[in-house]
Amino acid sequence: MANMDIDEFKEFGKAAIDFVADYLVNIRDRDVLPSVEPGYLHDLLPNEIPEKGDDWKTIMEEFKRFIVPGLTHWQSPHFHAFYPSQTSYSSIVGETLAAGLGVVGFSWICSPVCTELEVIMMNWIGQLLNLPRCFLNCDEGNGGGVIQGSASESIFIAVLVAREQAVRRLKNEHPELTEAEIRGRLVAYTSDQSNSAVEKSGILGAIKMRLLPADDDCVLRGRILKKAVEEDKANGLFPVIMVATLGTTGTCAYDNLEEIGPYCNDNKLWLHVDAAYAGASFCLPEYAWIKKGLEMADSLNFNLHKWLFVNFDCCAMWFKDAAMITEAFSVDRIYLQHKFQGMSKAPDYRHWQIQLGRRFRSLKVWITLKTMGAEKIRELIRFHISLAQKFEQYVRADPRFEVTSSTLALVCFRLKGEDTYSKQLLDNIVKRKKIYMIPATYQGKFILRFMIAGIDPQAEDIDYAWNEVKSQTDLLLGVDDNGNNVCSKKLIKEEIFEKDNPVGKITESLGGLVLANEKAQ
Amino acid sequence: MANMDIDEFKEFGKAAIDFVADYLVNIRDRDVLPSVEPGYLHDLLPNEIPEKGDDWKTIMEEFKRFIVPGLTHWQSPHFHAFYPSQTSYSSIVGETLAAGLGVVGFSWICSPVCTELEVIMMNWIGQLLNLPRCFLNCDEGNGGGVIQGSASESIFIAVLVAREQAVRRLKNEHPELTEAEIRGRLVAYTSDQSNSAVEKSGILGAIKMRLLPADDDCVLRGRILKKAVEEDKANGLFPVIMVATLGTTGTCAYDNLEEIGPYCNDNKLWLHVDAAYAGASFCLPEYAWIKKGLEMADSLNFNLHKWLFVNFDCCAMWFKDAAMITEAFSVDRIYLQHKFQGMSKAPDYRHWQIQLGRRFRSLKVWITLKTMGAEKIRELIRFHISLAQKFEQYVRADPRFEVTSSTLALVCFRLKGEDTYSKQLLDNIVKRKKIYMIPATYQGKFILRFMIAGIDPQAEDIDYAWNEVKSQTDLLLGVDDNGNNVCSKKLIKEEIFEKDNPVGKITESLGGLVLANEKAQ
Repeated sequence: MANMDIDEFKEFGKAAIDFVADYLVNIRDRDVLPSVEPGYLHDLLPNEIPEKGDDWKTIMEEFKRFIVPGLTHWQSPHFHAFYPSQTSYSSIVGETLAAGLGVVGFSWICSPVCTELEVIMMNWIGQLLNLPRCFLNCDEGNGGGVIQGSASESIFIAVLVAREQAVRRLKNEHPELTEAEIRGRLVAYTSDQSNSAVEKSGILGAIKMRLLPADDDCVLRGRILKKAVEEDKANGLFPVIMVATLGTTGTCAYDNLEEIGPYCNDNKLWLHVDAAYAGASFCLPEYAWIKKGLEMADSLNFNLHKWLFVNFDCCAMWFKDAAMITEAFSVDRIYLQHKFQGMSKAPDYRHWQIQLGRRFRSLKVWITLKTMGAEKIRELIRFHISLAQKFEQYVRADPRFEVTSSTLALVCFRLKGEDTYSKQLLDNIVKRKKIYMIPATYQGKFILRFMIAGIDPQAEDIDYAWNEVKSQTDLLLGVDDNGNNVCSKKLIKEEIFEKDNPVGKITESLGGLVLANEKAQ
Repeated sequence: MANMDIDEFKEFGKAAIDFVADYLVNIRDRDVLPSVEPGYLHDLLPNEIPEKGDDWKTIMEEFKRFIVPGLTHWQSPHFHAFYPSQTSYSSIVGETLAAGLGVVGFSWICSPVCTELEVIMMNWIGQLLNLPRCFLNCDEGNGGGVIQGSASESIFIAVLVAREQAVRRLKNEHPELTEAEIRGRLVAYTSDQSNSAVEKSGILGAIKMRLLPADDDCVLRGRILKKAVEEDKANGLFPVIMVATLGTTGTCAYDNLEEIGPYCNDNKLWLHVDAAYAGASFCLPEYAWIKKGLEMADSLNFNLHKWLFVNFDCCAMWFKDAAMITEAFSVDRIYLQHKFQGMSKAPDYRHWQIQLGRRFRSLKVWITLKTMGAEKIRELIRFHISLAQKFEQYVRADPRFEVTSSTLALVCFRLKGEDTYSKQLLDNIVKRKKIYMIPATYQGKFILRFMIAGIDPQAEDIDYAWNEVKSQTDLLLGVDDNGNNVCSKKLIKEEIFEKDNPVGKITESLGGLVLANEKAQ
């Protein structure tokens, strides 16, 4: 009566494991970008659900024929776009087990282990990343961690929590104002380099989000924040939250928390830190400088699904005072509320998030951390950084290029001279689908971002990528048989950045991701 | 260098599949509720991440020893609490494959198949559920569907979209008001029987959410809404959205859309319909009456992870005019925007949701729908309803009980007389952990909810549950050897509904789920 016989399930499940193993081991054999046109799948699948079911072998065949060709291969070590979203073998098994158990952990009784394993894992990760202890559940204070789905969700939650605690405080401080008047005067801050999710959190949270100009190194400085806040205060506005970034989307720049933090703390401005990618580096003592000032934050987020070997989605979020979120989000009747929820070993996580339901995400975290141990994690993070440095050395050794920035496992570079050359180079590379990079802007110039990603990148992958970049550059900037520079003939028109072509689509997705600073200008 | 050798992964992955198969086939052998105390896991796991990794066999052993005992078994057919969250064999395989592919589908180029399969699946589901065609992407209009994580998320999104479109409209209609004044006067409506997520969406969305009294059958009627809206309008407020429920959390009641819908449409009140559970019944022509009036909704949500055999999380959400959400949520610069995004075969789903990142959830949907076909789905839904009817017959045949309501696969009942008897009965049953039910209230009385859930419930499971209910009732209401009624000696005190005991915890989780009507009183 179930939807599949138990033996069929075992066969199908094991065939899936074999497929995944084969797919990941041989992933370099595939072009990193797919060769399909928009709408391709609509021509392959029926318009309506079939009346009769199929056996698993037919489905597996269709999976390979129809689904796999439409993938962009995020786990390929030839994927150098966006940020990594590394899966790992252990994490895949964790996801399988969690799907098999099929529990929904919105409160302790719904599956005690869901809540408790999450508390313990958030402490493990916090210690691995050398976070200030004030964020940890195992500390004396009211700190605590929770797994959210994504950085964008965590940032939005921070904005909502900061908004609600500010409204409560301001109602006391300004009895002459109505709540609507207070809400209408709230203002939030972030850098023009922060992820588009921060700006979106302002729209969704109905709070004005000011994008402050970062400096020439894409870093937001304290004096810029101070100036903006003082202007706004002089105009009767109420500053609520500053969303700082450690590792911006475009160039992985680090906002200056040592300047921003004290100002936020002194001025009752909630400080949230988005360390979605760079947070992984906190596990290395040699990168401890990146997180200087983090103890002044009220909340932070870090994506295990970016660079800690846990598959998407898995975003760790910590609060210095977890009571803030339960106060803001809880709809429980008073007589049912725990005291000190944040300090509890069994917090009511449904009050720490937007959703009611919760997946058992801590299971894949536990299995992955157990499989690797802290040593292996540090070793792999260091290795990925060394791969980026290897690529950087290639670029620096070629006089046609300039490296505009390089940190952790991201190298940003461009062809010297006009943007057009770099745009054309990227367009040519993406069209060939051998490696995948996306652009960003830096000091007003078009740059290429080379990110280490994929499930298990190796030194050979860097050679492969550099050969692709170099050979395409040779073609682009080379001379023809008559000794003429052929470059100008090949240069793309600006329209190529419109909708109807691959690079256009890339640029479009960047619109929401990387080019926030253009928007602010 | 990867976190596990490929052969180890295959062994571990296949062992996980074998574990899941064994776990699900033999799930009835386990007590449905765990026998652990709060904090149990903190005593079993180390406080810090180990330095060295473990081999997979050790991890699998610890998984069985430490993790499994802390589970509440949602897939057990002896689980009759909350609502179902059924996994299925096909869905588990789909989750495994998605984790293995490890793609993040926030825009078309990020993996074309992620976007396109989701569009097609949302049409398949919409047709399977006989939804009004205006919601479907394949219709001529601007309708479209998207997969969100949960009903609570979908409801919150509907509130945000309705809020933003209302603000835009009201700014034109009331140039004399500031935006802050407009936002301060917004008001939303729902029934006192709706899920706590609706009230929470008001808090998070900074919009007053009025809980309107449902009638004696837990149904919200049109005249109640009309009265509330007219009161509010007379007081200068701006009604924005009505969140109706088809299948309330407590008793699976259906708000009267035929009364509510026209009023909403005539008064520019966004109508969102939460059909998280009952939506599955739309695939059966004999239950078409439930969705009468649905064509008047602006948006709706239905959880595939409740009763359509796709594992959590997977909530389908449809819009009649998908441009409404992209207008409200998009932070793209104008020159990068598609026209007619909602009608496209490749919509930019990142603008349809809170998060930027997206899991490849349509894969498990496709595999599950392909495995079952529409026929098998209708057959299983009908079978589950027949199981509930079988239980209802047992209850009705026993003169000690009364059935307060029964619809789809939910039977609500109680012991006749004082609430104390039913409370004590539930307390005794939950303490024995053989079956798991939770309470609700109906017309001010304490009721027990018997829900069909678990991965593959059978007729024998109903006999098992009824035997448990009946035998515990015999014990509770029986007479001792001296012929005295022993009931009064055993009755629980009201304090049992405090924090520190299992039923207390259950009641607490109910606080956020089922007892919304108490809150409104």
